[in-house]
Amino acid sequence: MKALVYKGPGAMALEDRPKPQVQAPGDAVVRIVKTTICGTDLHILKGDVATCAPGRILGHEGVGIVECVGGGVTAFKPGDRALISCITACGKCDYCRRGMYSHCKTGGWILGNQIDGTQAEYVRIPHADTSLYPIPDGADQEALVMLSDILPTGFECGVLNGRVSPGSTVAIVGSGPIGLAALLTAQFYSPAELIMIDLDDNRLEVAKRFGATHAINGAGGDVVSKVMALTGGVGVDTAIEAVGVPATFVLCEDLVAPGGVIANVGVHGVKADLHLERLWSQNITITTRLVDTVTTPMLLKTVQSEKLDPKRLITHHFRLDQIMDAYDTFAHAADNRALKVIIEA
Amino acid sequence: MKALVYKGPGAMALEDRPKPQVQAPGDAVVRIVKTTICGTDLHILKGDVATCAPGRILGHEGVGIVECVGGGVTAFKPGDRALISCITACGKCDYCRRGMYSHCKTGGWILGNQIDGTQAEYVRIPHADTSLYPIPDGADQEALVMLSDILPTGFECGVLNGRVSPGSTVAIVGSGPIGLAALLTAQFYSPAELIMIDLDDNRLEVAKRFGATHAINGAGGDVVSKVMALTGGVGVDTAIEAVGVPATFVLCEDLVAPGGVIANVGVHGVKADLHLERLWSQNITITTRLVDTVTTPMLLKTVQSEKLDPKRLITHHFRLDQIMDAYDTFAHAADNRALKVIIEA
Repeated sequence: MKALVYKGPGAMALEDRPKPQVQAPGDAVVRIVKTTICGTDLHILKGDVATCAPGRILGHEGVGIVECVGGGVTAFKPGDRALISCITACGKCDYCRRGMYSHCKTGGWILGNQIDGTQAEYVRIPHADTSLYPIPDGADQEALVMLSDILPTGFECGVLNGRVSPGSTVAIVGSGPIGLAALLTAQFYSPAELIMIDLDDNRLEVAKRFGATHAINGAGGDVVSKVMALTGGVGVDTAIEAVGVPATFVLCEDLVAPGGVIANVGVHGVKADLHLERLWSQNITITTRLVDTVTTPMLLKTVQSEKLDPKRLITHHFRLDQIMDAYDTFAHAADNRALKVIIEA
Repeated sequence: MKALVYKGPGAMALEDRPKPQVQAPGDAVVRIVKTTICGTDLHILKGDVATCAPGRILGHEGVGIVECVGGGVTAFKPGDRALISCITACGKCDYCRRGMYSHCKTGGWILGNQIDGTQAEYVRIPHADTSLYPIPDGADQEALVMLSDILPTGFECGVLNGRVSPGSTVAIVGSGPIGLAALLTAQFYSPAELIMIDLDDNRLEVAKRFGATHAINGAGGDVVSKVMALTGGVGVDTAIEAVGVPATFVLCEDLVAPGGVIANVGVHGVKADLHLERLWSQNITITTRLVDTVTTPMLLKTVQSEKLDPKRLITHHFRLDQIMDAYDTFAHAADNRALKVIIEA
């Protein structure tokens, strides 16, 4: 089969690989119908993800059709349409039983990282019963690719951890796909203000179309005073960090109101300054989270009931044999006005 | 009247001052029966608290008898015994109506800071109806001085924010009065492990008597591996920071388990490193809080029902005319095996 293989920092190739086989009774092999590229894949290509060794097939998102299952799989059978979660969960360990699937002792984020991933014609999914979700009849499969990672990540790590609530004020720092996923799902809870902050005017225009009440280009400086002017001088109830660098995290520290929450979504490579000399008395909460994908079934229902339209995040389409072009487009997202790219296997 | 007056960094004096008067309809003047000294008073004396100007009468804890009240006070009358909260709350502003009394727009921590405090024969209490608590008949007044600040602080900022719960594992970094207040009130919730960490063996002995399951002297180094050995290698569900320096905060970052909470109680003068490069994926929560004293009535009930014995925190007694000695004893707490000192006015 064709597969996109990580060849070490800065290098990847579309190669022929053997089709994966069931290795354990809980496994399923899924024929990929559609997959996508994540910002995390770009991190791997930069060499930032030590757990991902050269030779790994990348990708942790996708929808497909179950090809075959191990003897222990009871929730899926060959021919079933399935949404692949970016998080593999045994459903049995201490962490899984607390709903913290991201820290599953034999799973977590392993797909396209510690085991071969979805940017291929087929993928092996361990713990299939609790790592795949059935796709309802009539659902738009392409839209559901956005539910593998990006929408539950924005929703769980940003919106739920950030306690977005009716009438509240929210700033989202970073208007890339993850920030926009938080923006879309924040609207479930009817906040009063949804302030998007980015350095790219195109992405801010998208944010306005997606429901942002205000868009601030940080290149103009003075973001803090602009947000204070929009919030009666107190700052926001929820600051969502959707970039992953120290400067944007510290910006969230400056934007959050007394009693507010900073919900970190970004993947960070270095430490940040925590200004406890000011924040110790401000009754704030800071949360971090690797998405658990516990809300995937709930998000599926919001798509079915048309409260959420994930297709708005999709800007480009490629075939699997064009995946090198897809990476190029996604890696230069600002130039290409790209959000998420769909790859058809 | 006699009053302990802050004279600028490093200086204080016991002076004669005019007895305070009712200035607003919500005021009460309270005759102090017993007061105490807080670590925060030592911070003021170091010049760390910019809001506290020279000339200020210090102190924000105490019990007393209501001397006179303004025309708007309805919950107290002259002769009533009253517990003075360290937090002054109007009960009416946005923050107060959310229970965030610490950020009251005309109150908060002002006593012995922005207005004259309790280390005197009399004190004026603004917003008396919502800043004083009635002392039940038969209650030990001296014990209740511990409910002005230290016990609600340890409980709200440490135990409640830290989500201490049955069967959970807790580390408290700092076995001074505030850490011990957290230790005592954590036991309301029956955690499995209560690990106290300090540099002073005497304080750790006290912690063991007060219910700590383990005591670790950080001077021996390797605190992290000792705590990991006590927690199955995963760290603690709750790490309570009760010191207020960067090193102890970072220690909490190293001790907290995936899914756990770091509850900051310490007063910090400088920033700390937040190791997001490791913590971003660990599903942790960090909280800060200036005590709101919303739990003071609940804590009063725990004292009345003998679930909590605040007198265990009291080690020394002085008269108001000996308050300079009391400060000296408290400032050299380790040498004097001092926890809280009571001053009788």
